[in-house]
Amino acid sequence: MTAPPPPPQSVLLTDLYQLTMLQTYVEQGMEELAVFEFFVRKLPPSRSFLLSAGLEQALEYLETLRFSDWELDWLTAGGRFSTSFVDYLARLRFTGDVHAMPEGTVFFPNEPALRVIAPLPQAQLMETRLINLLHFQTVIASKAARLVLLAQGKPLIDFGLRRAHGAEAGTLAARASYLAGFAGTATVLAGAQFGVPVYGTMAHSFVQAHTDESDAFEHFAQSHPDNVVLLLDTYDTEAAAEKVVALAPRLKQRGITIQGVRLDSGDLADHARKVRRILDSGGLTHVRIVASGSIDEAALRRLVEAKAPIDTFAVGTHLTTSSDAPYMDCAYKLQEYAGRPCRKRSEGKATWPGRKQVYRRHGSDGRMAGDVITLESDLQEGTALLQPVMRAGKRLTSPRPLADVRAANADELSRMPEPLRTLREGASYPIRVSQALQDLAGSVDRGG
Amino acid sequence: MTAPPPPPQSVLLTDLYQLTMLQTYVEQGMEELAVFEFFVRKLPPSRSFLLSAGLEQALEYLETLRFSDWELDWLTAGGRFSTSFVDYLARLRFTGDVHAMPEGTVFFPNEPALRVIAPLPQAQLMETRLINLLHFQTVIASKAARLVLLAQGKPLIDFGLRRAHGAEAGTLAARASYLAGFAGTATVLAGAQFGVPVYGTMAHSFVQAHTDESDAFEHFAQSHPDNVVLLLDTYDTEAAAEKVVALAPRLKQRGITIQGVRLDSGDLADHARKVRRILDSGGLTHVRIVASGSIDEAALRRLVEAKAPIDTFAVGTHLTTSSDAPYMDCAYKLQEYAGRPCRKRSEGKATWPGRKQVYRRHGSDGRMAGDVITLESDLQEGTALLQPVMRAGKRLTSPRPLADVRAANADELSRMPEPLRTLREGASYPIRVSQALQDLAGSVDRGG
Repeated sequence: MTAPPPPPQSVLLTDLYQLTMLQTYVEQGMEELAVFEFFVRKLPPSRSFLLSAGLEQALEYLETLRFSDWELDWLTAGGRFSTSFVDYLARLRFTGDVHAMPEGTVFFPNEPALRVIAPLPQAQLMETRLINLLHFQTVIASKAARLVLLAQGKPLIDFGLRRAHGAEAGTLAARASYLAGFAGTATVLAGAQFGVPVYGTMAHSFVQAHTDESDAFEHFAQSHPDNVVLLLDTYDTEAAAEKVVALAPRLKQRGITIQGVRLDSGDLADHARKVRRILDSGGLTHVRIVASGSIDEAALRRLVEAKAPIDTFAVGTHLTTSSDAPYMDCAYKLQEYAGRPCRKRSEGKATWPGRKQVYRRHGSDGRMAGDVITLESDLQEGTALLQPVMRAGKRLTSPRPLADVRAANADELSRMPEPLRTLREGASYPIRVSQALQDLAGSVDRGG
Repeated sequence: MTAPPPPPQSVLLTDLYQLTMLQTYVEQGMEELAVFEFFVRKLPPSRSFLLSAGLEQALEYLETLRFSDWELDWLTAGGRFSTSFVDYLARLRFTGDVHAMPEGTVFFPNEPALRVIAPLPQAQLMETRLINLLHFQTVIASKAARLVLLAQGKPLIDFGLRRAHGAEAGTLAARASYLAGFAGTATVLAGAQFGVPVYGTMAHSFVQAHTDESDAFEHFAQSHPDNVVLLLDTYDTEAAAEKVVALAPRLKQRGITIQGVRLDSGDLADHARKVRRILDSGGLTHVRIVASGSIDEAALRRLVEAKAPIDTFAVGTHLTTSSDAPYMDCAYKLQEYAGRPCRKRSEGKATWPGRKQVYRRHGSDGRMAGDVITLESDLQEGTALLQPVMRAGKRLTSPRPLADVRAANADELSRMPEPLRTLREGASYPIRVSQALQDLAGSVDRGG
């Protein structure tokens, strides 16, 4: 069973300027079709590729977008908006088309990851929340993908809810990291909402609340005979490992097997080796070692390279805040209005005009060989990355279970060229802007 | 009017281990009083003080915490938990006491900002969400306080919803930054939920959707005669300023005054000076200049020091993600159980045991002169920072309007010593751990 869907976020979760612009559009009758595209302007210095995520929540937002009575009352009471505009908002629904890259697609700067075609007020209104949803999950999926590559096949678990930025960040980080290849999360609600596998056993306070560490371990094992993972570092890690060895036979008599131990502080590689030796000497070769505690990319790389005998890594804060790159320079920009291509020319923020498509070529080894960004009307060789996902405000297919989406993309990271897969610093990927698109940009600049 | 309160977050917004530990506590009858404290272990390198925030949401969470039918059903269906434990959860309410620093208090590492005294299962269960709420708003309030100090009295507005980490991060960042001294936000829902003043006018797409920039300005002014702030940098900033000067007399005839212009790209100080000259030459000395566009601490400092003629700063991403310090090393730790003081001794993560209080002394100039962290039972000179806020699960006072909380703390930042107020790098503040507390820690370590 899964949870009832969370109540939709208020449509007032937006920037005020969306509403002020809308009133002018409505008053001026500017309701022709607009084309907006979401893209990332440039990569954070510590990233060489991005993994798309958040489309599912974005489509749900579009499909359910409407103003409730209290929202309309609040807008009216504020005195900023005309009665006729508030009436317009009461009737507003999203009736447009959306093309997008499937979740879990590797992509790069200036490649549109999502395109909206809708009457201008509809396409404009959604900007803030659409970016809010796509940006965050893409930040997390892109971070998680790096950790997955670094872990070289060892399972990773998200432990980061407590330091995620609020409630939604916690559940969506669990979702996005699972999509990118994490094995699961500690966040229960992410299990209930998205079916992400949920893991967890005990905290230091559990050990401290007992007067004796062995009692703590034994009590836990009795309560959870199928999920016995014991936390070793509350006082002295190796001493605790000895207690585990001493406890194991007593538990075995009662049919309980200790499945794992967790290390959460100190030199994790060193503790893992010592604990592994203690466990193995005590006949507990089957007991797995989970490591956690401020693990970031550098620590994970060191632990894997040092061949520390760690079976599972739990990553918290550095995953859910994407601490080394907590944001991306991304935008949702008007590219065409009423059939007229548009281009913003602000310094350092110029955009490519028109309705675009991204084609990706693959080599004979199946590896990604290069992308071309072009106009939708300009067919090119390769796979078109933007696919139709919504027409006239309705999704073209019903949402798939997250585990299926994850499985469908399981080999996406392995298709990247070697320098990207190995996270080589400064690695880049060939992306070409087509002649057709360059010509259109020139023509727009000349006012043509 | 204000919005109806958002639906409470699911109590499943927690780490699985809270529930697994709870089942053991309940089975073992471990329901004696526990004392947990929330504190920050150490400052991020780019911070020298913290500003507390999030208490209001934390108390609301505690007061309304309960398991709903679907949550109980989901836990039962998962097969991890016993029927009797699920029945226990159905009855669970928070009945404990809470002491805390008021929101908007300057505080430092190792100082408990909140203390919970409750039966162990209750005090444990809340850990994840309590940290999630206190951590994020404290991160943002502490970041916002630095920006407020740098702005030297000029108003700041939060523009960061789109890159905030999800929905709740967006509204709570608006709340926390307002609490810390920001003038307002662009996030409409933060206005509806918390009464934060809301600002906003137009985006580049608004200008682009028109074939003529002057038409865009004029249409906007007609729709919003009381809120005319025009965005100048879609194509050429100074050319747009000339258009504003040309438009002003036409609007004046219709009784409309242009109130401001916004710059969003390029060298903001240079553009501000040129635009100021153009506006002043055109008789528009009253028109205010708002600057936005990737403003971070360094940019704000440069703009203020260069005396750029900017009247209002809008800060987005760097505020709402606290990009230079997106997390803090904080914890919620068991300090006492069943009358027995506890101390975690994990490497690098040792904690001070017992129920604690923080006393702050002020000099004759009203400035903060030093803190002492001690046991609650050990009275010291100065102001006790932790105050009772909840007794037997009920708040002691009803929530105050956010504007009142903000006003009550308006001089908190100015009471900091000069090196902290001027954000001097490496500035520190005198904090002493009392002899009584050191003695207790020694006694706990000796098992006494």
